[in-house]
Amino acid sequence: MPALDRAAGRPLHVQVADALRAQIRDHRLPPGSALDSEVALQERFGVARSVVRQALSTLVAEGLVERSRGRGSVVAPARQHHRLVQRASGLYTQMAAEGLEVTTAVLSLTEEPASSAQDRWLGGDRVLRLERLRRVDGRPLARIRTALPLPRCAGLTAEELTDASLHEVLTRRLGARPTGGRRQVRAVAADTDLARELETRTGAPLLLLEGQTQDQDGRPLEVFATWHRAEDIAFDVDLEAGPMSPSGPALPPPPPDRDGLRAAAEQAQQLADRLRELADRAG
Amino acid sequence: MPALDRAAGRPLHVQVADALRAQIRDHRLPPGSALDSEVALQERFGVARSVVRQALSTLVAEGLVERSRGRGSVVAPARQHHRLVQRASGLYTQMAAEGLEVTTAVLSLTEEPASSAQDRWLGGDRVLRLERLRRVDGRPLARIRTALPLPRCAGLTAEELTDASLHEVLTRRLGARPTGGRRQVRAVAADTDLARELETRTGAPLLLLEGQTQDQDGRPLEVFATWHRAEDIAFDVDLEAGPMSPSGPALPPPPPDRDGLRAAAEQAQQLADRLRELADRAG
Repeated sequence: MPALDRAAGRPLHVQVADALRAQIRDHRLPPGSALDSEVALQERFGVARSVVRQALSTLVAEGLVERSRGRGSVVAPARQHHRLVQRASGLYTQMAAEGLEVTTAVLSLTEEPASSAQDRWLGGDRVLRLERLRRVDGRPLARIRTALPLPRCAGLTAEELTDASLHEVLTRRLGARPTGGRRQVRAVAADTDLARELETRTGAPLLLLEGQTQDQDGRPLEVFATWHRAEDIAFDVDLEAGPMSPSGPALPPPPPDRDGLRAAAEQAQQLADRLRELADRAG
Repeated sequence: MPALDRAAGRPLHVQVADALRAQIRDHRLPPGSALDSEVALQERFGVARSVVRQALSTLVAEGLVERSRGRGSVVAPARQHHRLVQRASGLYTQMAAEGLEVTTAVLSLTEEPASSAQDRWLGGDRVLRLERLRRVDGRPLARIRTALPLPRCAGLTAEELTDASLHEVLTRRLGARPTGGRRQVRAVAADTDLARELETRTGAPLLLLEGQTQDQDGRPLEVFATWHRAEDIAFDVDLEAGPMSPSGPALPPPPPDRDGLRAAAEQAQQLADRLRELADRAG
């Protein structure tokens, strides 16, 4: 924990709130975790109790911290969208299935020369370049750049791609179903254009998903890059089943012990919290 | 492309280089893609040809751009590590398999009260907290915070975990093989402590991998959060074979209704309470 800057013009309670907010945002303090007690924070930052209290009130007002009876201050649950990146289905289908209002604006749709190795993977010298902005419940979530193969995709219109799933349009128009492919995930800093489009600040972290998708016949169908506002989304990944031990099938699990029951209780609690969150959204 | 700030103290060629560098770093200009011609850049930024040339020379000197005969300037290939996030195997095993020199420093190893929902998933009131820093070829790549179940993992020492794979140690010491689990991926901005440890700047984007891992018997084995220097790593994900629909894409399911979700949340809450009660009795 860094020392505060006592010479700076910023009040100490603002600096304490900034330090805790940064740790909540980058998950050093994950959702549901208990903050140190007021006394411990007072000692750690070397400030008066009233400064700690004012900083905590700020974070409570921002919805980042909740006061919990018996457990002191805890980090509030994250209100993030989740995207299953192992699925071929896109953001539109996944968000719509959760009952969220998803809109998609087509910023441009133009035929262009293939300009990168990714573009050339589609197999031609020219590509159909589609630039889109996707909002969820009115807030920009994702800026999507897609290259589609030509001449196969010639004739797609901006109108049919507005507020639509690209994958559904490709299936309906071409009979091409997104079936396999690879994804790469990176964290990047927003340049000025991306920051403006996603209504965030230049340099803000973005979660970038890049991918190549094939259709059911193994033909290249799309290449895309999607920049997501990082604070609004998490990608979920399930582990592949690991290699089984050579000595045969796994033994039956032992009867539940206390630790196992506590773990199950915790999982049920997380499920309950998640369902409540979904219920609130549906309301 | 934003206009340059002609009143600013920074030379125009520096501003042009900054704008292009930001686009290369966030993959608006992906590796292998062709930059616009010098003439096009001159027009886009409204600067003299010599300014464009000086900016490009800067990016070439930084290794971000390569001059290619016949194709003009292209973005250089990315020098990034790749991590397969669907595999249970950790960073150490994956990097070592590539012949890279991986070192792991144990920053601390202490028994602590469980402080978050993730910790409590391990099933006890206390956890063994392990804080590590992993370097690849001498450069910090990942800051790892792990919680391990107690009393099962009591007795692990910092010495045996230094420059080692945690998973290998757990398998050797406990016979517990990391087998299944979930992963979440986020992009976050570095707080001052993470920035110092990873030798980057405060606010720099980090790629965060969080996970819960179970052993071959389905028992909770570890909970971890790993912050990676974003410019040095990409996560790879393979798509699952999607469910094939007989007659085209499935219609999106109807949005969940609020009352149904509230009822499900209530059932999950009752389940959580009942499991906690059983855990208390078993204890």
